Amino acid sequence: MNVIAPVDQRSRQAGKRQEDADAPSPAAGDSPGSRYRRVRARTEALAAPLSAEDQCIQSMPDASPAKWHRAHTTWFFETFLLVPSRPGYRRFDPAFAYLFNSYYEAAGPRHARQRRGMVTRPSAEEVAGYRAHVDAAMLPLAEAATGGVAALVELGLQHEEQHQELLLTDILHALSQNPVWPAYDPGWCEPAAAPGATGWLDGPGGLVEIGHGGDGFHFDNESPRHVTFLHPYRIADRLVRNADWLAFVEDGGYRRPTLWMSDGWALCQAEGWQAPLYWERRDGEWLEFTLAGLRALDPAAPARHLSWYEADAYARWAGRRLPTEAEWEAAAALPGFLEAEGHVWQWTGSAYRPYPGFRPWAGAVGEYNGKFMIGQMVLRGGSVATPPGHARASYRNFFDPGKRWQFAGLRLAEDAA
Amino acid sequence: MNVIAPVDQRSRQAGKRQEDADAPSPAAGDSPGSRYRRVRARTEALAAPLSAEDQCIQSMPDASPAKWHRAHTTWFFETFLLVPSRPGYRRFDPAFAYLFNSYYEAAGPRHARQRRGMVTRPSAEEVAGYRAHVDAAMLPLAEAATGGVAALVELGLQHEEQHQELLLTDILHALSQNPVWPAYDPGWCEPAAAPGATGWLDGPGGLVEIGHGGDGFHFDNESPRHVTFLHPYRIADRLVRNADWLAFVEDGGYRRPTLWMSDGWALCQAEGWQAPLYWERRDGEWLEFTLAGLRALDPAAPARHLSWYEADAYARWAGRRLPTEAEWEAAAALPGFLEAEGHVWQWTGSAYRPYPGFRPWAGAVGEYNGKFMIGQMVLRGGSVATPPGHARASYRNFFDPGKRWQFAGLRLAEDAA
Amino acid sequence: MNVIAPVDQRSRQAGKRQEDADAPSPAAGDSPGSRYRRVRARTEALAAPLSAEDQCIQSMPDASPAKWHRAHTTWFFETFLLVPSRPGYRRFDPAFAYLFNSYYEAAGPRHARQRRGMVTRPSAEEVAGYRAHVDAAMLPLAEAATGGVAALVELGLQHEEQHQELLLTDILHALSQNPVWPAYDPGWCEPAAAPGATGWLDGPGGLVEIGHGGDGFHFDNESPRHVTFLHPYRIADRLVRNADWLAFVEDGGYRRPTLWMSDGWALCQAEGWQAPLYWERRDGEWLEFTLAGLRALDPAAPARHLSWYEADAYARWAGRRLPTEAEWEAAAALPGFLEAEGHVWQWTGSAYRPYPGFRPWAGAVGEYNGKFMIGQMVLRGGSVATPPGHARASYRNFFDPGKRWQFAGLRLAEDAA
Amino acid sequence: MNVIAPVDQRSRQAGKRQEDADAPSPAAGDSPGSRYRRVRARTEALAAPLSAEDQCIQSMPDASPAKWHRAHTTWFFETFLLVPSRPGYRRFDPAFAYLFNSYYEAAGPRHARQRRGMVTRPSAEEVAGYRAHVDAAMLPLAEAATGGVAALVELGLQHEEQHQELLLTDILHALSQNPVWPAYDPGWCEPAAAPGATGWLDGPGGLVEIGHGGDGFHFDNESPRHVTFLHPYRIADRLVRNADWLAFVEDGGYRRPTLWMSDGWALCQAEGWQAPLYWERRDGEWLEFTLAGLRALDPAAPARHLSWYEADAYARWAGRRLPTEAEWEAAAALPGFLEAEGHVWQWTGSAYRPYPGFRPWAGAVGEYNGKFMIGQMVLRGGSVATPPGHARASYRNFFDPGKRWQFAGLRLAEDAA
Repeated sequence: MNVIAPVDQRSRQAGKRQEDADAPSPAAGDSPGSRYRRVRARTEALAAPLSAEDQCIQSMPDASPAKWHRAHTTWFFETFLLVPSRPGYRRFDPAFAYLFNSYYEAAGPRHARQRRGMVTRPSAEEVAGYRAHVDAAMLPLAEAATGGVAALVELGLQHEEQHQELLLTDILHALSQNPVWPAYDPGWCEPAAAPGATGWLDGPGGLVEIGHGGDGFHFDNESPRHVTFLHPYRIADRLVRNADWLAFVEDGGYRRPTLWMSDGWALCQAEGWQAPLYWERRDGEWLEFTLAGLRALDPAAPARHLSWYEADAYARWAGRRLPTEAEWEAAAALPGFLEAEGHVWQWTGSAYRPYPGFRPWAGAVGEYNGKFMIGQMVLRGGSVATPPGHARASYRNFFDPGKRWQFAGLRLAEDAA
Repeated sequence: MNVIAPVDQRSRQAGKRQEDADAPSPAAGDSPGSRYRRVRARTEALAAPLSAEDQCIQSMPDASPAKWHRAHTTWFFETFLLVPSRPGYRRFDPAFAYLFNSYYEAAGPRHARQRRGMVTRPSAEEVAGYRAHVDAAMLPLAEAATGGVAALVELGLQHEEQHQELLLTDILHALSQNPVWPAYDPGWCEPAAAPGATGWLDGPGGLVEIGHGGDGFHFDNESPRHVTFLHPYRIADRLVRNADWLAFVEDGGYRRPTLWMSDGWALCQAEGWQAPLYWERRDGEWLEFTLAGLRALDPAAPARHLSWYEADAYARWAGRRLPTEAEWEAAAALPGFLEAEGHVWQWTGSAYRPYPGFRPWAGAVGEYNGKFMIGQMVLRGGSVATPPGHARASYRNFFDPGKRWQFAGLRLAEDAA
Repeated sequence: MNVIAPVDQRSRQAGKRQEDADAPSPAAGDSPGSRYRRVRARTEALAAPLSAEDQCIQSMPDASPAKWHRAHTTWFFETFLLVPSRPGYRRFDPAFAYLFNSYYEAAGPRHARQRRGMVTRPSAEEVAGYRAHVDAAMLPLAEAATGGVAALVELGLQHEEQHQELLLTDILHALSQNPVWPAYDPGWCEPAAAPGATGWLDGPGGLVEIGHGGDGFHFDNESPRHVTFLHPYRIADRLVRNADWLAFVEDGGYRRPTLWMSDGWALCQAEGWQAPLYWERRDGEWLEFTLAGLRALDPAAPARHLSWYEADAYARWAGRRLPTEAEWEAAAALPGFLEAEGHVWQWTGSAYRPYPGFRPWAGAVGEYNGKFMIGQMVLRGGSVATPPGHARASYRNFFDPGKRWQFAGLRLAEDAA
Repeated sequence: MNVIAPVDQRSRQAGKRQEDADAPSPAAGDSPGSRYRRVRARTEALAAPLSAEDQCIQSMPDASPAKWHRAHTTWFFETFLLVPSRPGYRRFDPAFAYLFNSYYEAAGPRHARQRRGMVTRPSAEEVAGYRAHVDAAMLPLAEAATGGVAALVELGLQHEEQHQELLLTDILHALSQNPVWPAYDPGWCEPAAAPGATGWLDGPGGLVEIGHGGDGFHFDNESPRHVTFLHPYRIADRLVRNADWLAFVEDGGYRRPTLWMSDGWALCQAEGWQAPLYWERRDGEWLEFTLAGLRALDPAAPARHLSWYEADAYARWAGRRLPTEAEWEAAAALPGFLEAEGHVWQWTGSAYRPYPGFRPWAGAVGEYNGKFMIGQMVLRGGSVATPPGHARASYRNFFDPGKRWQFAGLRLAEDAA
């Protein structure tokens, strides 16, 4: 069963900065070296609209400074490729091994996550120097790499693409903390959503295969491809819209405990939720803070910046439920399955746990995914902030059910009669 | 497929106070009235060794005072049966509706959970009066009940049995906070574990049915019975022992982050875990605080008072994994599957989420299980604190993965070659 | 200069339980043994209206259970008198040295203050046994004591009187946590306040002496008697009334930041203060929770259960200020100075710091007062909860400026023109 | 009695950046305009070594970003002078009134203190533009000002000088959070301490006057000058040295509870204090993090970055005590009183409370000092970070007794025999 979703090409063009507009797909005959250069350059392009100050701050422990993302992705290449595989390589600065390790216990001690915003030095400019130093050493290695080394280079690039998305996600949060609501990029444009009304697709039932089974790159958490059993279900052909969400808000969705999971209701009350994270009401009108700044809320756009708790409560209010990740993945191959990616990550009803037969990668990169497989819910698809070509139908994203700063929304499902 | 596990009869006799020793099984021709009386009397018998002070305190927000358990279970009958179904019934005290509601939003506002230990009045004795008042009104109702009312009476009794287990679990924690380590009942005796070495069973693979499908009482979260697909696996015939756990401790199990989930390691460090919750080291010997007081650790007994994080880390250290709840339930019917219940609840690798097609009960009791189906892991089996006859193979217990005060242990599993 | 305030005898009769009504003053020819018996018996009489459960709970870290007060005061005699001075004395229970030490570092490790409510055992009854055991050994010692031992006995009794006040103060808070508002003693009666309107007294200026200088018992913090210089001032002859406070409330006193100290305003907002601690508004009427239960607010009674921040804000609103402790003590000797004690402790504008030349007592009891001389404000006078004859004009009480559960109110002062 | 301490001219030259080296004293015939220019320029000179990132971060709620100090001092002139006194003045940016108000309730709502580090925009450069805009409008006003306006200009400059000190204090803390320990200014040089051994001065006893009584600028909290009574005392002629402090450390000063105030000991343990804030032990040697970076600890230099609790514990260990603020001020006029300023602020034993007859300034600037007069201890003198000429003997600095990031040390005192 083919679960590789056809990508909505229209959405590819929008919601991206200019350098992405004519980006060739990674499979299009890209040489390893040019792919390396392209991914690395895209990170710098995403950081370009940001001042040194913008790049330095950390707005909450969950988020990281843009400068840190730029440095940490570089540390990844230095630590897992240059130091072990390139004899004679000298670290740009030995202190960076401590400053820019994220969570790899096997790679030694590291700066506390919640103190990343205290690192004013190295400066944004010095980090550019770090990137150039590592790139100079990496390029020949990337171009000549085969086997395990080539796989690690690709992992490094996939890792960097993930941080590109986080960079955008985190900077939106950081800028939202400023009472003057500065824009990341006033020219940022959002992808258009599918026109018309929601349709419902019959999901495939019985035994299906999910997980990644082909040759291309995939993360360890997507494998092994395996059989699972699906009960008959139906799934919406598109995402829930802001207009839909507004109806939920106006119907008291944020004030009715019986719509909510117990933990979700407690969090909703503790944090005073009354609407999605970046909605702002002024003079009776709803606005949304976006990468382009504060804008009028677009009722036709997919709702986003929702916690799992909100998505779940909405689905209950709507008399529906969230799809499981297997349902989502199986349905993503159906004709008519719209907005699979390019808008928002889509919360599922599945807890993030290992697939049957899961084995983490060997070595330090074995900490990449496995140790987070508890307490989180799976999201599928891909968002406007996801680099083009990065995600796929078997891709498993995951976050804590109470977090709202991701570009996350939902698609409804229901049991078949 | 029959998943009703044969109960280990030997363990039934042990680990219980005298009043349980010759308790007839609930199916043994018990009249509704005598069953009502028996369950209600058992609660009072469990509370009997406790002083008024013991019954009043709340040792942490997760736990409740013994007196509160006695009153809340009574409130349940009063609120969901007497008030709606018994014309002319007068509440014992209108304030109790506020004091002893646990979490039923539909039943009105309630005393804050973490302040339950502040309720010195009503006294333990007045709660006995409350119980007698409600019992006097309930008995004729229970004896004559049919249909939905009879089902609610049975739910009330099952609910009370759950609180009997919590009463023991919570009081063990409460007494553990006292530096003089007082015993709940010096005569409390633990069930003997199966002798000999661990054997491994081949679990049933392919399509299996799990969930409750028969006529007997079951909670909404156990249904519907449904098909699921199991990959080949093997499962231990018994629980992990204290001697096994000691080897984990001595091998640095609590000091090696790579054995742990990321969140688990953070909690292990924050709370300084070095052994299971009630282990205490004195003069080079390990003791365990039990309902009988502080005792020498029994190496042959099943390890318990473990968080899911510890169980998961242990399994990784042992080169194995936790079974999923479907694997556990399917294997529970196999010959040779020992210690299914009567010792400890058994952590599984499954997050607590609704079964396909799950529908919560209608009305206020619909809040019973459904709203907790997030952020928790499933435990299967039943513990020494579980009332005899209460649990069954389809029973789904659930707790936060970081909690340790339950009688929780583990059984190992692995993928078949 | 004589600063021993004449005690308002009328207030002595009220606000006390029966056993105080005809209590002889401690100076009235009381033998050491009869004084010992009387003070110890009064503690038990104060605890008598409380159930075992009432005596066990701790409603906040600042408060202690009634049972703990009974045991700790007993521990004091055991530790500082019986063990060192009575050869052959055997501790009632060695564990009590750990359980009932409050804060004496020199007396060894102790149970954590905020866990005092977890000590269900020993029971209230066993504590009565502990008290009897210690009393039996203490009585001959008290009767025969001279010199340093006699001084320590008296210190133990003064210490116990302080805990008598705390017992009442803490139990009022504990009972206030119960949504059914149970009364400590429905027959408790409050002292009558002085009739008529507030008058103003001219305080003595220039060089005055304050501090305790006579032979009678006094705490180390009251000495040495010393010279200080007072600028001309005026002081109210009586306490601020509930009716006055109501005017402050109704004038927006709790909503106007410019009336408040910065820290006080932050706390007022964080804790949502809108009136004194135990005021409760129902159906448009103000009630007050008292030791006699919930009662209509008496406009003529002195306002109480105020933090220093509230007292200070009120004084600013009234165009006045709090008196310093030296001003208070010097004025207490003036004719017409009413309500010096018997109603509420009176906040002053003075931080609690050592007097010039202060020396803590030698030995373990040196920790009695000195180590708390930072971060607290001085209160003068004595309250309805203070044992008759315990306080005097030189007495220095002290609390954190944000605490509200004490019987604390205020008297106004102002600079003389 | 003359309490204006002669300034130690030698210390004036050191510990300052070059622009201070030949700074004329403010009294030296400076025109109002040139004084305005000089103070404002000094702020920019102090910020000059800092990158945009350095200036943006807030390392703890107590501290503020350097950029914020630059903007807030400018807001002060704009709000209290330009807007009311300069018709036609247009605010540089209306949002700044919200962003850069510190704590003036009367000046309207403001950005939350603990979120100051989130303000990446305006940039450091835009703040320079803000400063230039306000300076252009202020200069003619400053030059022509008389009466109340001139007094407000001077207050604005004194206020800016206070923030100059905070800028240095806060940036030292911010840089200390970076594990690479970057220097503020590698060329920063510390003032030399007085050579030789500590001598003891006899303080003036009896009635003395303290407080500011002359014509020059002073804060409201220094007045009125008033009489107070001093008991005979002796005071050290100089500050406690690092070598002295090391002896305290090595004698277990941080491990002996009986040396400490109760609250101080609790904080010492909670925060794990083992030495002054910026001491760092490496390979058996003590280093200190300074504005010049990490340096070998100078045993001859005054100990600093001490909380009041540490200073108080040290004094007790040394068999001495801290001087009261009146003792300090009276002694500062004595011949031989060394190191009055230029090194560290000196903790006193006095709580920060209003002087007898204190009246806050009228209007919004009345919030300047008065509302902080609770919960803080007085420091006297002036530090290496204090602008030359800013402090005087009557100057009352104040901080929370638990804070350590100030340039604070101590001088000992004792009762005269």
